[in-house]
Amino acid sequence: MEQIKDEWIKLVRDLQNEICQALESRDGKAVFEEEEWERKEGGGGITRVIANGNVFEKGGVNTSVVHGKVNDGMRNQLKIDGENWFAAGISVVIHPVNPYVPTIHCNYRMFELYNGDGHLTDRWFGGGTDLTPCYLFPEDAIAFHRLYKVTLDAFDQSFFDQFKKSCDDYFVNTHRNNERRGIGGIFYDYKRPDKDRHAVFWMDLAKACGKGFIASYIPIVDKRKDIAYGEKEKYWQEIRRGRYVEFNLVHDRGTLFGLKTNGRIESILMSLPPTVRFEYNQSPVPGSEEEELLKVCLAPVDWANL
Amino acid sequence: MEQIKDEWIKLVRDLQNEICQALESRDGKAVFEEEEWERKEGGGGITRVIANGNVFEKGGVNTSVVHGKVNDGMRNQLKIDGENWFAAGISVVIHPVNPYVPTIHCNYRMFELYNGDGHLTDRWFGGGTDLTPCYLFPEDAIAFHRLYKVTLDAFDQSFFDQFKKSCDDYFVNTHRNNERRGIGGIFYDYKRPDKDRHAVFWMDLAKACGKGFIASYIPIVDKRKDIAYGEKEKYWQEIRRGRYVEFNLVHDRGTLFGLKTNGRIESILMSLPPTVRFEYNQSPVPGSEEEELLKVCLAPVDWANL
Repeated sequence: MEQIKDEWIKLVRDLQNEICQALESRDGKAVFEEEEWERKEGGGGITRVIANGNVFEKGGVNTSVVHGKVNDGMRNQLKIDGENWFAAGISVVIHPVNPYVPTIHCNYRMFELYNGDGHLTDRWFGGGTDLTPCYLFPEDAIAFHRLYKVTLDAFDQSFFDQFKKSCDDYFVNTHRNNERRGIGGIFYDYKRPDKDRHAVFWMDLAKACGKGFIASYIPIVDKRKDIAYGEKEKYWQEIRRGRYVEFNLVHDRGTLFGLKTNGRIESILMSLPPTVRFEYNQSPVPGSEEEELLKVCLAPVDWANL
Repeated sequence: MEQIKDEWIKLVRDLQNEICQALESRDGKAVFEEEEWERKEGGGGITRVIANGNVFEKGGVNTSVVHGKVNDGMRNQLKIDGENWFAAGISVVIHPVNPYVPTIHCNYRMFELYNGDGHLTDRWFGGGTDLTPCYLFPEDAIAFHRLYKVTLDAFDQSFFDQFKKSCDDYFVNTHRNNERRGIGGIFYDYKRPDKDRHAVFWMDLAKACGKGFIASYIPIVDKRKDIAYGEKEKYWQEIRRGRYVEFNLVHDRGTLFGLKTNGRIESILMSLPPTVRFEYNQSPVPGSEEEELLKVCLAPVDWANL
């Protein structure tokens, strides 16, 4: 039992190192600053933050390994049952400078529950990667989704379609006419090991998808980071970032979990974009590039199978 | 019964007109744009928005008169019981350009519940005004609180201290070490008319406090709107606006009520500041003016009785 925990912790920390290295080498200016923190109720994490780079305006690549007693907030709001919990995972959010480079998020995590005697009563895996562009490049959207399709097909040919749909269903500003945060990706949760698929299956899948972060994102960064932009594009980026804030603070389960479990607030809210704009009744000009993006947020596209 | 409704609706609309006039005359450039809207499930509102003025960067002075069937979201999250509900109120949020002029919010509302036969089963009043400066001027804080103390003392000498405490207890970012959104003001809720204090008592109180908005805020605007400021002050304003966003989207009952009842989203989220900044681990320099403000947000001061 402890072996799986240890392997999982090693997996997320290795991913953290690889992702930081890939992003730093792309940025060429800013480097990640690391902060190790401890949680009073149990466990801690390693937060790595990059800011004001050539390419990345604000980003975090965080791991945490935390545990505690199940409290009422978790029971009521998160429907969690048991005496003690353990969670470990990696969480990445990158907000680039250039409005033509998409924001990206990924998170891979394992969760365990124990009874009063300390016996493991439940374990599940969850995760996903999703892309949030301000401007749509269909070729980027296709390449991004196909990479995850190929990655997941190696595990189960039915996964990609399921996980794509879960992603479209999850990252939704329901209060904004079901507008999606971005153009989706993959999302899965509550994957419990069974006799056919042991924990190692779900760990391998998370590892493959985690490595997919670099393989899917870096080529897009390289293609778009030097496109010229002006005030109009920065303005639209800040408007879209506003929707990102709305999703994360109103709807996101991960943020809610962090707030309910007395998590380290600066690591949880590291996901929020650096500069943001909220305007009354903002909507893009009909026929504009901005409206093209909005359309695919309102009606998700099956990019991998186009 | 209908008479109280009508009087209340007239009261909030009159306040809306007075407040808009007072703010417009101060701004001297921007004017309020009005939008009347209807709610599919019942009722509607009048949204008035000001933007990019000399003094006010973004603000809304909204009234709404809405009704509907009690749904599960309201029952579970808002603990509301009954068949049908009615709500009417005024809601004001003003974000000034100059970081030395405080943001202000007020809201005065009446809520009614009915059983299946259409009989009134419950009615209550709520409201308040609170001030959110980025820089602290103790004389402004004192004048602001004293005005509401004098106003409330005319109704009941115990109210001010109660309502001040409720305000300090309500506008709290519990996830940020109980940091208050600003320097407080007054807040009251669930005030049910009884044989000693009829509905008209609570309407008069709301009217007096609503007029207090102008009397308390305009003198502060006049004193502070022409103070010179630079990038440092604007930066700090945007950081503080970030905390405002966090409170409104994570904790505010009014926002939650709007989202759960399918309210008009642009009118609900009009409260969000125009430009906002989220930085990792931001904290003011020890001994700075910025830290002075933060201190009184972390430990509220009894300004009226200083």
